[in-house]
This record gives sequence, structure tokens and C-alpha cells, in this order.
Amino acid sequence: MEETMDKVFNPASIAIIGASETPGKAAERRTRSLLDGGYQGRVFLVNPKRSELFGRKTYPSLLDVGQEVDLVMVVVAPRLVSSAVAESIKAGAKGVIIITAGLGETGEAGKKIEAEIVAEAAKTGAYIIGPNCSGLFNASSRINLLGVPHIQEGGLSVIAQSGNVIDSLTHYAKARGWGFRKIISMGNAVGVNLHEYIDYLRNDDQTRVILAYLESIKDGPNFIRSARETVKKKPVIVLKAGKSKAGVRAAASHTGSLAGDDAVVEAAFKQVGVIRVSNVDELFDVADVLANCPLPKGRRIVVLSEGGGDNAIAADNIESYGLEVPVLSSDTQKKLKPFLLEGMPSVNPIDYGGTAEENPLMINECLKVCLEDEEIDAAFITGFFGGFKDIIAARVAELENQAAGEMVALVGRYQKPLIVHTSFARDDVASLNILKSAGVPVIESSERAARCLAALVKYSDYRQKSHTVHFYEPIINERPFIKEILKKAGGRQRANLLETQARQILEEYRMPLNEAVPAHTPEEAKAAADKIGYPVAMKVLSPDIIHKSDLGGIKLDLRDEAQLAAAFEEILAGALRATSRDRVEGVLVSPMVVGGQECIVGMVRDRQFGPVIMFGLGGVFVEVLKDVSFRVAPLTEEDIEEMVRETKGYKILTGLRRQPPKDVRALKEVIAKVARIALENPEIKELDLNPVVILEKGAKIIDARIILASPED
Amino acid sequence: MEETMDKVFNPASIAIIGASETPGKAAERRTRSLLDGGYQGRVFLVNPKRSELFGRKTYPSLLDVGQEVDLVMVVVAPRLVSSAVAESIKAGAKGVIIITAGLGETGEAGKKIEAEIVAEAAKTGAYIIGPNCSGLFNASSRINLLGVPHIQEGGLSVIAQSGNVIDSLTHYAKARGWGFRKIISMGNAVGVNLHEYIDYLRNDDQTRVILAYLESIKDGPNFIRSARETVKKKPVIVLKAGKSKAGVRAAASHTGSLAGDDAVVEAAFKQVGVIRVSNVDELFDVADVLANCPLPKGRRIVVLSEGGGDNAIAADNIESYGLEVPVLSSDTQKKLKPFLLEGMPSVNPIDYGGTAEENPLMINECLKVCLEDEEIDAAFITGFFGGFKDIIAARVAELENQAAGEMVALVGRYQKPLIVHTSFARDDVASLNILKSAGVPVIESSERAARCLAALVKYSDYRQKSHTVHFYEPIINERPFIKEILKKAGGRQRANLLETQARQILEEYRMPLNEAVPAHTPEEAKAAADKIGYPVAMKVLSPDIIHKSDLGGIKLDLRDEAQLAAAFEEILAGALRATSRDRVEGVLVSPMVVGGQECIVGMVRDRQFGPVIMFGLGGVFVEVLKDVSFRVAPLTEEDIEEMVRETKGYKILTGLRRQPPKDVRALKEVIAKVARIALENPEIKELDLNPVVILEKGAKIIDARIILASPED
Repeated sequence: MEETMDKVFNPASIAIIGASETPGKAAERRTRSLLDGGYQGRVFLVNPKRSELFGRKTYPSLLDVGQEVDLVMVVVAPRLVSSAVAESIKAGAKGVIIITAGLGETGEAGKKIEAEIVAEAAKTGAYIIGPNCSGLFNASSRINLLGVPHIQEGGLSVIAQSGNVIDSLTHYAKARGWGFRKIISMGNAVGVNLHEYIDYLRNDDQTRVILAYLESIKDGPNFIRSARETVKKKPVIVLKAGKSKAGVRAAASHTGSLAGDDAVVEAAFKQVGVIRVSNVDELFDVADVLANCPLPKGRRIVVLSEGGGDNAIAADNIESYGLEVPVLSSDTQKKLKPFLLEGMPSVNPIDYGGTAEENPLMINECLKVCLEDEEIDAAFITGFFGGFKDIIAARVAELENQAAGEMVALVGRYQKPLIVHTSFARDDVASLNILKSAGVPVIESSERAARCLAALVKYSDYRQKSHTVHFYEPIINERPFIKEILKKAGGRQRANLLETQARQILEEYRMPLNEAVPAHTPEEAKAAADKIGYPVAMKVLSPDIIHKSDLGGIKLDLRDEAQLAAAFEEILAGALRATSRDRVEGVLVSPMVVGGQECIVGMVRDRQFGPVIMFGLGGVFVEVLKDVSFRVAPLTEEDIEEMVRETKGYKILTGLRRQPPKDVRALKEVIAKVARIALENPEIKELDLNPVVILEKGAKIIDARIILASPED
Repeated sequence: MEETMDKVFNPASIAIIGASETPGKAAERRTRSLLDGGYQGRVFLVNPKRSELFGRKTYPSLLDVGQEVDLVMVVVAPRLVSSAVAESIKAGAKGVIIITAGLGETGEAGKKIEAEIVAEAAKTGAYIIGPNCSGLFNASSRINLLGVPHIQEGGLSVIAQSGNVIDSLTHYAKARGWGFRKIISMGNAVGVNLHEYIDYLRNDDQTRVILAYLESIKDGPNFIRSARETVKKKPVIVLKAGKSKAGVRAAASHTGSLAGDDAVVEAAFKQVGVIRVSNVDELFDVADVLANCPLPKGRRIVVLSEGGGDNAIAADNIESYGLEVPVLSSDTQKKLKPFLLEGMPSVNPIDYGGTAEENPLMINECLKVCLEDEEIDAAFITGFFGGFKDIIAARVAELENQAAGEMVALVGRYQKPLIVHTSFARDDVASLNILKSAGVPVIESSERAARCLAALVKYSDYRQKSHTVHFYEPIINERPFIKEILKKAGGRQRANLLETQARQILEEYRMPLNEAVPAHTPEEAKAAADKIGYPVAMKVLSPDIIHKSDLGGIKLDLRDEAQLAAAFEEILAGALRATSRDRVEGVLVSPMVVGGQECIVGMVRDRQFGPVIMFGLGGVFVEVLKDVSFRVAPLTEEDIEEMVRETKGYKILTGLRRQPPKDVRALKEVIAKVARIALENPEIKELDLNPVVILEKGAKIIDARIILASPED
């Protein structure tokens, strides 16, 4: 695939159908940016109403060109798009970029045109980019079809679902002197899809960081696969809109694609190591740091400044992003002392005070000692380095330049990241330019610098993971017994399994079910209770009753025969308020589970990402705090570890106050098996284990609910 | 006070003791910035080693000047500071600014010098600014003693505990074209304290916004009083360092002042309407918006852009800061339709698309409709306004200028805030300059723009509050009965009151105590239980046992005489493991309280802020989640309302699922009375009501603990 994709990015010839010279028009801007951009291949302009544009011969139709064309850009009215694409295919195009808007995003008529386009392209396997997109840029072939003049060359590649965001990105880049490798505007993405672009950029050696602005991810599993592979080679930073209701509204109406549930997106990003940002400027800040800094081994940061105030602010920022500013070892503190004024702190943050303002080389004496320390993973210089010459005295300028050079050398020598925050970051200052051009990030805001450092640590953490998919036992692909249950139940009118059926499936996966004996009569219930031993629990068994407790369908702590008999009657009476007698199969009698912590483990099949696994502690944690975590199956061991740990209630499982710790390993096994059941049984739409009681040793599933996919799903 | 304070800011003469011409030295920079700054009064340079500096006669001693001097700046070695201050006082100085560092912040020797300074100043009531400070700036008298050249005049006034932060602030301001009214560097603040500066700036009409960088607040109650008054007139924006452990370390070592508990600071800021920020750049962004925008009536924001992507990002940002982007009324949507392209959304966010890029006047057609809508409180324009001329066509420039002028007019007409986010914000663009100079904030980052808007809404909310201090009944100043208990208990070796004593105090305030009958023998306990009615609870009563349950000192749900007798024995046995028999006074027998929600209400006396009141729900909310809220007494009705609402567990009190709502008013009354007890009885150091059970009607205090202040406190 990539070879033909490469023809799209490096075509020998390009045609523009709908070329124009009316200033400000979409077609004119793009024709101009292509012609002015230095592209060396052949260019053909097509416009039936003009014989010449930009002083060039203009063809009435693409077919009049009389030779093969690798890449075609289409900028015509919606009703003309289908035939333009058909012509392009006939002319041998490997790729067609459709700028035209007003198609699928506006309604059914547009969707029909999109279907025609896709059918045309399928004839030869040509790539369709767009429609409703903004164009393409490739630095190596000097193609600029974005209509944005003067895009600088660099190591960042962009995939974006919004043309305006590309405009903003290119402007920010210009202001900061950064450049791009490739820029892709996806638009409605009826042809080439997100993961195909990511795959392509993964193998583009000159792309150092991939940036994406996304409003929806249509093919979740492929995105996950592609991103997971890519992140092992280079950072992927995504600005994903649609966190809020209004954000979803704006995004949905924008590219005609429904933005998915943000919790699932967030989970998927965590799993594959994609760094998520919220803004275009943050996208840039983070890209700069991830593109240039060595990866830190941990999260222990040393903070240095000539100002105690800046130190205090930086320390607050760094710790607020989950990093540490640890007290330095006494050994390191001793080594620092000679460089610090009497009484100045060497604990971390380090304050070298006015000494450094007059002699900036002092900074590196301290920096070197800190980078040498194996207990320090990265350095953060804060204050107004680069501005000493203005605030102190002009003679300091040369020393600042020298200090900058030394900083670069120290980063290279110790391979630990250094980030410099200074209020002079955006000024044109020689010393800061030395840092910037050597890839030491210089950032104007202490907070944003800390945020970038946190992103770098996160990316580094991810690179150190094993990525092993979690299966506690070998996969058995065929489970005819389960398929039989699912098939049988699937034919029924209601798609929720009877609890006994759900239990059969869970048993097949050796899930730790609490014992539950079916009983159809009070006598059978008594026999069951005698066998189990009092006290027991009893619950209704009927395909029509999902919310059992609402109808008094659950009775707990039944201590003797009399209580048992009364409970049976009450359960039956409650059930008959909801359904007929022949739909009540009886009850389940179970032992009471004492102690332990109630949890919920669930699965729901997401339209875009497939099976999403949920975990949370029971009670107020789920009901009041919505304290749950999500991950997309398949799960790695680290995914499961993280999804358990990231809940606020996790502490309870580890043993709060005088409570003994719970068997977290047993919990993890339950989660792993839920993921596996979901992957192996696509017939199951939802699965709920609620509660699962985690004991000091082992776990007990008290209640299980399985809902099957209906034909409409 | 303010009149003499005014002599410090508007002196007829200034002397510098320790003036210097060595480039880069603290004294040289400040002497230079004063001489170059345009100050019109008399200036006297003092340096015994020089007869001339900066081409001016230089005096060996201040006393050689031979006339009164209003303001003296001292920049000499620490050992010379005391005599320099003494000379200043003799010369009639109304204020002495001490730049010299290495005093109180470094140890005892320095603290001694500071005490001498304070004693000298007390002779005449002169103001001491510093030591270890960075100087002073006042635009109206053109005094620049900061050593930072070319500070522009404007409406912002600054109080800072760090000289370097002032350097950063002045640099940021220069980069954005903003200016200052007054800048005060507090240093160690041994003389003039924070609230005195705030009081002074409150009455300075030309100061539109007060900015502060603080590391500690020594006098909490005065700060609260002063800030509360000030915020009613103008915004106070504070960057307070010391949120994190490392931040506290850096701040503490910096100005020699211990940074207080951040939770208390945070609570105090909320109460008095101080807007808290985390960074210097944020301080500026927020100041710009608060200084210039009309106050919004609510938090309903309309978002407009030519780009759907920018809209989606802005909506996410705005909602993430707690504001709303509501669906517009159908009436407003109908009015917008004519200006939008077919299929473009009018719900909010509004996307006027490419139309506006070619004709920016279109923006105002939409903006006007939205500002007219009474259900919209503020507008947020996002995208790249100001850059259309670069991206679309040069001819658009004039239309952008015209559109900017109209925007300014619309803000004036409707008195609703407008914030413009554009990637071109930092460029020198005519249209954006029109907005900026008319006070319409133009911000480079969508996120930061949203954050500023949220700060504006917060400030506006605060301005609408009643500020009524909460007392449910008139204050009784004299409660001799309580004073007697406190006096008696205070004389004892251990300062925690016996529960019966604590209950007596609470009873005096008519607090809703659960009944508790003291019993010294099993027989007395039986009599109490018979009177109360089974089941009962029983707990140990001993001045030596605070954590009763640790020793098995609490027995619940005792259902009959036998259980009661056994419990008495067990409680006694447990107590004897901790203390002797004569220190066990017996037990308290209480009715069991059924149902309701356990809460905790507490009070602890903060060294800097006085009585701090705490509220939280019991169980996991306090233990696992640390879900508690704080406020500093006295409390207003709104304080109490907010401290209850801001806990995550609050939802439970309002009635979760089928639980009836609890009596929140009764809870608030308990909180109000705890604040009142704290204010009226300074002898009480800590007070804990844990648990207080909030019932459907009323509340019951189950357990109460009071600890008295010891002589060392």
C-alpha cells in the first residue's frame, strides 16, 4: 500500500480541476500555493471556462491533457465532483484530493455523491483524500496544495480534520520558526482513513513527531493498532475535540462525523501511548519538547533559578502535573554548596541568586552536578535567562551565549532533558537562539513548560512498557457449548440472558462465581439452603426481570427455614407484578458472602472502538462519584494494572486503616477474562458483573448480567 | 494612615544610602532607574567613599544633606543597615525602603537586625518597606526604584514578595504593551504589611486591578478584611506560591516566611473573592480581562468562528472551566440563519465559515444577534480574525479593521464581555490593535482565553454576593458558664476536654446533641438504658482516651441488659490498658441513631488565619477521598452554602436514588455555630463533631471533642 500512497505524496504530475485566479477563492489560493511552492513536476490546470490561468495553458477537461496524471485536486461545485473523480480515475490518478465541501456533512444528497466517488476510486484502488478537506503539503516534494503560503520545512507532520486548525498551526509555526514535513487534511475521509495516514507517517523517516487534530475516530481498532505501533517509533500527539457537549455539537456539524464518547477515546489514547492535548498552542509546545529532548528515565526533576519566586512557582507547576521535585541527596547538596551564596538553599529547588545574573556560567556548575546525580531525571531552569543582559548589564550578553552553549553540551553528555522557562522566550535573543536551534526547548510560561515536561515523562513511561496482551491461559477459539447458548438465546425476543445462562458462560471461562442453586419451589429452595448452610441469599430468576431489587427480587441474610419460605413468597409476589407466572423460572439460592469489597466489572461494545471494559468500586464510588475506569479490549497487563489503580477508590483495595488488603490479583483476572469473553464472543453486547466481591483471598461474582447484540446493533 | 503612606509614594525628596555606579550592582541599577525615570523631586546620593556619582554631588552621610528627606532607599551591607535606618529616621524620612538581603531570611543574627530596624522606625511611625526587597515604582510621581528600566505607565498595580517576579512581570508587560500604576516589592515585610498595601491601593483611583505575588500571608484576618473590602471596588488577582511541598520549600527559604497550609489559603481566597492564578503569564492574561471587560451577569457563553475545528476546541475549553455554551433559543437561531451558509449550525457554537473570511463584517451581524439575546452573557470569538488578510487576500485588511471597530461598539452598547482568541494575537495587526486599545482582550490561546473568561465570571459572581455574616441568633458575648469550664480545664495537664464538658459547651449554643447519660457503674448504665430504651450505644469516658474506638471504647446496638453488662466490662478492660482506674470516669449511654448521613464538622485554629472550619461527609469521603471543604471564620451565609456544596459527597445529602433528602439546613446551622463557638472562645484550639448525623429532619451530634490551646500555642 505504502508504495502507491507514496505516489500521492510524491507525484510526477498534478492536475487541478476547477483551477481559478479569482483572489481569495479556495481554488485560487491552492493553485497559487502550488505554483509558488517550488514543485518540480508537471502541473495541469483544468477549467472549461478559461484557456489560460496564471499565464499557463488551461485545459477544458482533464482528459484533454492527454497523459497520465498522478495526483488530482478537485475544487468544483458538489454536483460536478463525481464526474471530476471519474475523469481523474480515467487519467490514471493514484490519488484524488477533493476540496469541495457541502457533501456528506450536509445530508443525504451529499452522502450519495460520496458513495459515487468511493465507487469510482474502487475501480483502480486510487486514494481519495477528503472531500471537504483543505489540501496537502509535502516538504520533500515541495507540494503545497493547502492555499497557505510559505510553509517552512521541518520535522513535524500533521493530520487534521479541520482546515482552519491547519491555518492556525502553520501560523503558530511561522511565529516560532518551526517547520513541517507533511500536512494532511482529512476532511470527511470517505477514502483514505486515519490509520492509513498514521501508518504512512510512521515509516516516513523525516517525520519526527506526528500531530493530529481529530473530531472523530471512525475505525477504533485500526487506529489503536496503528497508533500502538507508531508510538514505539515516534510520538503521536493528538488534539481531540468533543470533550464537552457543545464541543461534540460543533465537531459533529463540522465534518459530518459523530464524535464518539470521550471516556472511550481517552482510554484508548492512554492504552496506546498517544499524548493528548487540548489546544493548538499546547500541541506545538509539546511537539517541540517531544521532538527534541532525550527521554527521561523517571519523573524526578531538579529546578534551578536565580529567583526564589520563580523556583516556588515552577515547583508548584511541576508537582501539579504529577512530577516530583525531590530533596537532593546530601552528597549532591554538598557538591552544590561551593557555587551557592551563604544561606541559599541547595535542597531543590536550587537558588543560585544574583551570582548567576552577573555570571551565568554559574548556572552550568550547578546544572552539571544535578545531571550527574542518578536520582535526577530531568532539569528545569526557570527565571529570566536570556534577559540578564537587559536587566543586569549589557556585558553579561556574551556570558549568556557561552552558558547556553554549555547547557547544550551538558544535555548531550548526560542525555537528560533540560527545559528552560524564561520570560524572554519569545524574544529574538542570541543565547536563547543557541538553545532553540540545538533542540533545548525554551518556553515562555512556567506552567506550559511543566506540562510539556509531564508529557515527555508520560511518553517515556509508555516507551518502557512491555505491551503484553493479558491472557491468563491460552485462548480457546472454539467453545461450542457457549455458541449454543448464545445461538439459542439470540433467537428469543428479549436479548438478555437468564442469569443461569450467563453463569454457564462465565463458568466456562472459570470465573469465580458465588455458588447459586436454582430452585423452582419453596421445597427445592429449602433443600438448597440446607446444602449450602444458613444464612443464605435468594434472588428471582426470570428472563423478564433485569432490575431485580426494584421488585423486591433480592433477599439477603435469610437465617432459617421460616425466613426462607417467607422470602420465596415475597419474591414470587413481586415478580408477578412484572411478568406472568410461566415467565418466572424460580429463584437462585446462594451463600452470603461476608466481608470483602464490592466492585463492578463491565463491558459494553462501542460503535467505534469495539469492546470497552469498565471497572469501579461499588457503592458511592460508582453511584455518586462516577469513579470508574475504561479500557478498550484487548488489554495488556499494564492496561489492567492502570485501570485498577487510576480509580480513586483503589486505596480501599490495598487495605485501609486496619482492614486487610484485598486480592487485587483475583480482581485483575476477572477483568482480563471479561475482556477475553468480549473478544471471543461478538454476540455479547453488554456484560455486567455487579457486584464482584474482592476478598482477602479470591473474588466472588455475586450477580451477572449478559445482553446479546440484536440484529440492529 | 493613608496620608502619610502617600508621602512614601509621592515624596518631595528621595535619598539613596549606598548609591553606586558599578554597572549591574543592585544600587547602581536602582540609582540609574530613578535618575532616568523622570522623577521631579530632589534626589540625594549617599556614599562615604565617593564625592560624586552619576555626575552628582554625593554625601558621606544622610545627615550631611542638611534637610528633611521624605523617602530613603538603603542598599548597604547587612551590618550597616541599622545605622542607615537610624539616620533616615533622624532625617525625617516617612518611609525607608531596604533593599539589603541576608537579614531575617538567613537566621537569628539577621532577625536581630530586623528588630533594631523596627524599633528605630517606631520612634516616628515611619514606614519600613523590605528588607530583602526589590524597590518601588509609582507612575504618578515617576519614581522608579526597581532597577528595571523603562516601565510603562498603565492601570495595573503590583504587590510582590519576589523581586524576580517583578522583573518577569515588567518584561511580559513590555512585550504586550501594558503598563503599571504602582509596583511594590514587599521583601521580608517587617514594617508595612500586606493588608496595608492593599488598603492603600484600594483607594488609589488610578489602580484598576491589583496583582499580587505572595509566598506567605502573615496576618490572615487583616488580609481577609482588607481583600474583602477591596474586591468590592476592583479585582484582586493573586499568584500564591507554595501549593506543593517543593513549592513551600522554595518559598520558605526565599523570603524567610513560612508558607501556610494551602487549603486554608485557597479557602480564604474563595471567601473574599480573590482570583487565584498559578503563573505570571496567567496573572497578566486575567488582569487584562478583569481590568477591561464589563461584568457578565452569568456564565452562558456564545462561541463564534469561521472554523468548525476552532469552535469545537473553544467549546471544550469553555466548558472545562465550568462555563456553559448553551443551545441558543429558536428565536435567536432564526435571526442568525440569514447570515449563515446553508447547512451551517446556528445552535452554538456558530460557524459562519468562509463567508466571514472574505467579509469579516458578517461576524458582527451574528455577534449583534447573540449579544441582544438575554440568555447570553458573554461572547467568545475564536479562529484567526486579524489574519484573514494574510490567509485569504490582502483586500480583506480594511474590512477587518472596520469589523474590529464595530465589535468595540457592540461591546459598549450591550455591556457584555467579548473575548477574541486568534492565532495572530501577538502579531502587530491593525485590526487587533483596534480591539486591544479599546480594551477588548485578544488572546493567543483558546484555553487561556477560556480561563480568563471563567475568572471574569467568578469575579462577577462574587460582586453579586450579599456578604452577610451568618449568625442564626444574636451573639451572646459573655457566657460565664463556658468560661468557667474552659478555665478549669485549661489548668489541667491534658488540654482535651472530657466529652461531658464538651457537651456542656455545645449545649449552651443549643447544638443538636444526641442524648448521652453518664454512668459510673453497670447499674447506673442499666438505669440509663432503661430510661432511654434499647437498643443503646455506650462509650468510654476518660480524659486520657481520645481515640476511643482504638481501645474498644465504643459499643453499638446493645439490645438487652446482658449485652449492656458485657459491654461495660469490655469497655473498662480496654480503658485500663491505656490509663488507671481513677482516670476512667465511667461511660456515656446513648440512644442509637438510625438512618441519616454521617458528616464531620470541625474547627482548627490556623496560625495565620485564625479559626478554620471544616466540613465533610463521613466514611470513605473523608478517609479515602479527603473530600472536605474549608472556610475561615467568620462565615457568611454564602460561605456555608458553598462549603457544603463544593464537596463531592454533597449529592448524597440531596437524596440519592430512593433515599429521601437530608436536612441540609440543620447541617448548615451546626457549621455556623461551630464558627461562632470558635470566634467567641479563643481558648478552644480544636473542635471535632464526628460524626454528626444529618437526618431527614434535624441533625444529631454523636461525638464531640474539644482541645484547648496550651500556653505554647
